[in-house]
Amino acid sequence: MPEEKKLIDLALIEDSLYGDLTTEILGIGGRGRFTVHAREELVLCGTWIFEEVMHHLDPNTQVRFLFSDGQEVCPGVIGHVEGSIRAILRAERVALNFLQRLSGIATTTRKFVKRIRGTGVRILDTRKTTPLYRKLEKMAVRCGGGHNHRLTLYDGILIKDNHIRAVGSVGEAVRRAVKNRPYGKMITVEVESIEEMEEAVEAGADIVMLDNFRIEDIRRAVERAGGRVKLEVSGGVNLDNVREIAETGVDYISIGALTHSARWVDISMELAEINY
Amino acid sequence: MPEEKKLIDLALIEDSLYGDLTTEILGIGGRGRFTVHAREELVLCGTWIFEEVMHHLDPNTQVRFLFSDGQEVCPGVIGHVEGSIRAILRAERVALNFLQRLSGIATTTRKFVKRIRGTGVRILDTRKTTPLYRKLEKMAVRCGGGHNHRLTLYDGILIKDNHIRAVGSVGEAVRRAVKNRPYGKMITVEVESIEEMEEAVEAGADIVMLDNFRIEDIRRAVERAGGRVKLEVSGGVNLDNVREIAETGVDYISIGALTHSARWVDISMELAEINY
Amino acid sequence: MPEEKKLIDLALIEDSLYGDLTTEILGIGGRGRFTVHAREELVLCGTWIFEEVMHHLDPNTQVRFLFSDGQEVCPGVIGHVEGSIRAILRAERVALNFLQRLSGIATTTRKFVKRIRGTGVRILDTRKTTPLYRKLEKMAVRCGGGHNHRLTLYDGILIKDNHIRAVGSVGEAVRRAVKNRPYGKMITVEVESIEEMEEAVEAGADIVMLDNFRIEDIRRAVERAGGRVKLEVSGGVNLDNVREIAETGVDYISIGALTHSARWVDISMELAEINY
Amino acid sequence: MPEEKKLIDLALIEDSLYGDLTTEILGIGGRGRFTVHAREELVLCGTWIFEEVMHHLDPNTQVRFLFSDGQEVCPGVIGHVEGSIRAILRAERVALNFLQRLSGIATTTRKFVKRIRGTGVRILDTRKTTPLYRKLEKMAVRCGGGHNHRLTLYDGILIKDNHIRAVGSVGEAVRRAVKNRPYGKMITVEVESIEEMEEAVEAGADIVMLDNFRIEDIRRAVERAGGRVKLEVSGGVNLDNVREIAETGVDYISIGALTHSARWVDISMELAEINY
Amino acid sequence: MPEEKKLIDLALIEDSLYGDLTTEILGIGGRGRFTVHAREELVLCGTWIFEEVMHHLDPNTQVRFLFSDGQEVCPGVIGHVEGSIRAILRAERVALNFLQRLSGIATTTRKFVKRIRGTGVRILDTRKTTPLYRKLEKMAVRCGGGHNHRLTLYDGILIKDNHIRAVGSVGEAVRRAVKNRPYGKMITVEVESIEEMEEAVEAGADIVMLDNFRIEDIRRAVERAGGRVKLEVSGGVNLDNVREIAETGVDYISIGALTHSARWVDISMELAEINY
Amino acid sequence: MPEEKKLIDLALIEDSLYGDLTTEILGIGGRGRFTVHAREELVLCGTWIFEEVMHHLDPNTQVRFLFSDGQEVCPGVIGHVEGSIRAILRAERVALNFLQRLSGIATTTRKFVKRIRGTGVRILDTRKTTPLYRKLEKMAVRCGGGHNHRLTLYDGILIKDNHIRAVGSVGEAVRRAVKNRPYGKMITVEVESIEEMEEAVEAGADIVMLDNFRIEDIRRAVERAGGRVKLEVSGGVNLDNVREIAETGVDYISIGALTHSARWVDISMELAEINY
Repeated sequence: MPEEKKLIDLALIEDSLYGDLTTEILGIGGRGRFTVHAREELVLCGTWIFEEVMHHLDPNTQVRFLFSDGQEVCPGVIGHVEGSIRAILRAERVALNFLQRLSGIATTTRKFVKRIRGTGVRILDTRKTTPLYRKLEKMAVRCGGGHNHRLTLYDGILIKDNHIRAVGSVGEAVRRAVKNRPYGKMITVEVESIEEMEEAVEAGADIVMLDNFRIEDIRRAVERAGGRVKLEVSGGVNLDNVREIAETGVDYISIGALTHSARWVDISMELAEINY
Repeated sequence: MPEEKKLIDLALIEDSLYGDLTTEILGIGGRGRFTVHAREELVLCGTWIFEEVMHHLDPNTQVRFLFSDGQEVCPGVIGHVEGSIRAILRAERVALNFLQRLSGIATTTRKFVKRIRGTGVRILDTRKTTPLYRKLEKMAVRCGGGHNHRLTLYDGILIKDNHIRAVGSVGEAVRRAVKNRPYGKMITVEVESIEEMEEAVEAGADIVMLDNFRIEDIRRAVERAGGRVKLEVSGGVNLDNVREIAETGVDYISIGALTHSARWVDISMELAEINY
Repeated sequence: MPEEKKLIDLALIEDSLYGDLTTEILGIGGRGRFTVHAREELVLCGTWIFEEVMHHLDPNTQVRFLFSDGQEVCPGVIGHVEGSIRAILRAERVALNFLQRLSGIATTTRKFVKRIRGTGVRILDTRKTTPLYRKLEKMAVRCGGGHNHRLTLYDGILIKDNHIRAVGSVGEAVRRAVKNRPYGKMITVEVESIEEMEEAVEAGADIVMLDNFRIEDIRRAVERAGGRVKLEVSGGVNLDNVREIAETGVDYISIGALTHSARWVDISMELAEINY
Repeated sequence: MPEEKKLIDLALIEDSLYGDLTTEILGIGGRGRFTVHAREELVLCGTWIFEEVMHHLDPNTQVRFLFSDGQEVCPGVIGHVEGSIRAILRAERVALNFLQRLSGIATTTRKFVKRIRGTGVRILDTRKTTPLYRKLEKMAVRCGGGHNHRLTLYDGILIKDNHIRAVGSVGEAVRRAVKNRPYGKMITVEVESIEEMEEAVEAGADIVMLDNFRIEDIRRAVERAGGRVKLEVSGGVNLDNVREIAETGVDYISIGALTHSARWVDISMELAEINY
Repeated sequence: MPEEKKLIDLALIEDSLYGDLTTEILGIGGRGRFTVHAREELVLCGTWIFEEVMHHLDPNTQVRFLFSDGQEVCPGVIGHVEGSIRAILRAERVALNFLQRLSGIATTTRKFVKRIRGTGVRILDTRKTTPLYRKLEKMAVRCGGGHNHRLTLYDGILIKDNHIRAVGSVGEAVRRAVKNRPYGKMITVEVESIEEMEEAVEAGADIVMLDNFRIEDIRRAVERAGGRVKLEVSGGVNLDNVREIAETGVDYISIGALTHSARWVDISMELAEINY
Repeated sequence: MPEEKKLIDLALIEDSLYGDLTTEILGIGGRGRFTVHAREELVLCGTWIFEEVMHHLDPNTQVRFLFSDGQEVCPGVIGHVEGSIRAILRAERVALNFLQRLSGIATTTRKFVKRIRGTGVRILDTRKTTPLYRKLEKMAVRCGGGHNHRLTLYDGILIKDNHIRAVGSVGEAVRRAVKNRPYGKMITVEVESIEEMEEAVEAGADIVMLDNFRIEDIRRAVERAGGRVKLEVSGGVNLDNVREIAETGVDYISIGALTHSARWVDISMELAEINY
């Protein structure tokens, strides 16, 4: 994972380019063991990057987590970190910042996934990710049980409202896309109404994204589509309505909040033993 | 702001290293004007970085915001972007990702700041920021009316629980820090009880951080300190209790949630005119 | 094109980190106009990167090409470069190295494309590109009239011989891919025989790549497939047999030689006027 | 070789920033052994960079080549790669792209070197190298038995046609160079005629490059020079005429085609054993 | 120390991007042991970076110093380097360049520190450091027994003459700084006269820097300040007057010459054994 | 000069990644004019990099120097800087750090050059430069009137004591170098005695470096060499003995102190006008 190493490198520079002033003036040295604590129920994600941060500062630091990424953990001790106290204290905040953020996304995603269990629908993320964290945040979504929408602007075709305005109509946009279809790509188009869905299907779209449809319109869309295309719901999805949407029979539900509104979960470290 | 340019550069690489496939196969070209819409009430923050993203892809793109960073805006049009439609569509998501995230932090901060208006207390952030966004997220806190705690591990002295465990006691830790005090720095120490606060004051601390104190303990601490040190409250602060805490007479309240649990605000772009 | 700027920056460092010794000791200065000459028939490609190289060293250098990328040009003058002689001489070799290489790929591709004119088949490239030139070399293929196969390992599904060995059989591999199909991607599988093609079609492949098939086997494959999948030919394709292959009715022909065996075309620069 | 590590790092980012989608969805895991096959006669070059690519993705991958760089190999197995199948498949294309390109240059160079065996003439490369590959491609030339001309614009003096036009005459250019000669450098000048050669010799040139001279003019030049300078032939050299040129008694023959027109040689990898 | 690794990486690229020509053409190989010699009395500093440079080129090179950073050494052997002769010769100059420069700064600093022994005054450095060496040069000052002034423009408040001109007066500048004091920072102000010192004290400055004061004015300032603020002397300090200044009773003496005028000390390497 | 831009970029990050705290809390804004003052006699060098630093922070800052690089200036105003006071104050220290250091090297070099005026000898620098400043420091030497020795380990052949030990003798080393001489390079060898000089000449060296020879031995060497090689003196050269050495008739004198012991010259900036 060479890219993540750079992210970690920059993150440590950002936080402690000139060192850790407090630890230095206190003359703290020696070796110690820290415990890592979950302070709430959460889905763990990012243990390997936590470990990389620790190793980046000191390759001799030992990190052992009691759980794997993707597991649900209860409040309590979830891991141990042993090594130079000075190195661990310097890396602590950066390592936790990654772990808390990624576990926060996995935890949020898991809630949605559990809510629709048994429906066969896939929960998808979006491109509303923190810049430079696309890959990590999308991994966290998978840790939580979700699936990834396209990763970037160049690995998938998604025709959105602004494209349609630029081209003139849903039908025209889809026809152009089908004609110039890049090798191996399906074509998704976002529609505002059932009429537009019909236009898209006729023009040859592979997936139709129903944007901000009311629940009854989603139901009608499923019926009208009759299996001719895959259907995706997007916009206004929350934990209260996701089950109802999933039960309409659509194929995908994409949710920006998985990444853009997941609060960090509470994880902290404690110095448990010194000089052992 | 050379550092931000690199962040933007990497963000655009992340999202569209090989270009924007959809716009290309649709053959979209020409010039257009887009409107930027606030979809909810928010405190605007990050307009200059939005503009930098647009200019990074095409220096001829024109960006005009109707409001400045730090202003509260109502739902509606808040800006205009004009130029090559292709360049704007490629930059859109990255530009919005920055703007939505930073405005989210400013908006969250502003809520806390308004709640304690008139008390003279300063709302502070923490180092719980997204790695690589320390500077931007701390700017967003200032946009919202908050103040910044130390920026990095080397520009301030903050003695925390793990340091105290490593050294032995609050008093010993503060004494060492005072003796080796780096040029020009004050000394802050985190305490768990009023007894520890007393120990810290006697040892010469400049600022005492009351960690997870109950409201009545905060009040007793203020009384006992009697102005001999600055007092800072940290842990478990939310919009419901922040006013009561502020009214105890402490000097600072530091809140991790300003940065780690601020959801993005909803801002979007719409193609308003083509080929004008 | 921020990525290309870095490539150019590194290329100039590579060639003249400490400057251009010859021009310096000769005391060459002043302004001049250079002509750019095609020394053979070629398809032009890379004029914008040629210009970027010149501007990187001196933003005041003026570059005017008489033809656009993708055009076929005869031997003769194809452009003019005006500005500081010293800056132009320093950039000359790097600028030409890009232009000659990319035009070489476009020229080679055009030969294949012309040979199959009228058949409706698409000529595709491969991932056999010079490391760090993936994007540029694939642009050159498009300049020449070819189309791009997947860009990277993560933007398309291509099941090859080693995958099949690892999984056990063509059928098993395709079934797994269909089951775990990433959002929006089609599935291509490489086969060694008509039996394997049959297995692939039944398992749900979208595109079948006939690897090193003899011409008569390609014909039989087209017949057997009967339009149920797209067919792609790969391996052993050259200017002598490409037409015959295209006329069998396959959909795609992918050719590594477009990028890995295209010789550079001959382009040079001449100082035409001094101090004008 | 710190610079090559960056090249490899960027090359892997280019090809698989977000991973290898096919291998992931097929659920391929476990360990395996791959064989590396030469598919034609070739001079091997770049085994160490092949190994670096493999190690960059997974330091536990084992690479053993049966031949060393610079050796001529026949079609057949030339090496083994063992380790995580997933890691090897992800690195395969990038590793081969380096190996095939560098071996291609070494193979082409060797053909020229063998053709002039016994004449004592040195085959030289040029600065017509792929930007960012100067060092590697020049290593490949040495692997093939050639020698390197100057590496960059600042490590050697080479007065070319455009310099002469800027300065006025061959004699004047050489005189200036001799007067301002940088410490430790010889002076090479490119000439178009025997008269210019004479002018260069009188002005004190160390090496005279005969540019695009016909064979009979080369012979006359050798005679006229009479050992007063080193002579170098450049332009229009190919496998058919290189022997005849070498036998005229010149000292160097420089050939751009060593690097700019060497086609890749055919090398591939095969999964030979699984889970052993 | 990830940042230093980059510095070393760039330094080696600068010196030997394309290798070490002399060692190569001499065909030098095999293993050897080198001795490192101090050619004068000096305070050693930078042994770890010397070692990093050696390891960067070849991780198998062994480096043993007989003294630690901060120790005073006499002329003679101070260390041993064993490994590949070729790798050591390539790294030698860069490794010594770091070591000689940093030891030079430590040696210069130590002279000042010894001169004021017993006075309790702290010798401080300034921001007059070689760009990109801030951290290393400040470490060297500490090695020599000095202390660090602020590291950067953002980790401390230092109001200088140009700020005072911009704001209007010492008093006004200090009042603004006190009012907007960043969390945890003291305020230093540079003054030109005792009247300005008085103004600064009244406005609430924490530290007053007496800029270019004559010795008798420093004495008067100490008297007038009467312990109300910390006093710092700056400007025109040298080994001849530093003791007299220190004895006036000021708290700090800051000296740009520690970093900007320290000549390198003489250290060299010798090949002592070959092929042992 | 793309490389210098990176150096400047890193230097500004080093000094003010998070901004200029003092200027910010003082609320300094508006535009102003600063004067640049030489505080002693000096040879100016680095004005263009001073200007680049200023422009890097704010492209609208105007910089005008009254003298050019290489000119000797007396104490007094040497330039003006106009623009945003905030931007100029932030860039000031970094810009001066470059200018003071480079002018210091130019000033030191000039002293040596003047001392030997009329002898025709060239003063050369060495590779004892601050890592990452090779190019800039060697430019400063040329500004001062000196010449450059080889730039890097790969652009010149210099056989030193450790090479000779590794190979066995001066004669053997030179013979190998002559046999494998890279295209266009002369061969320099360092010798310890007149006997070794003789050995070097016979083996075909182009330049012989007399290392730490006493003045009478230099004279004897010049006599013995009798013009058969170029002679270079190195080691123990200072302003007191350089003239005497130069008058012996050697060709080059190389001096490490030009770069490694040049103290910075004193240059400062003053805010002269506000809001004009």
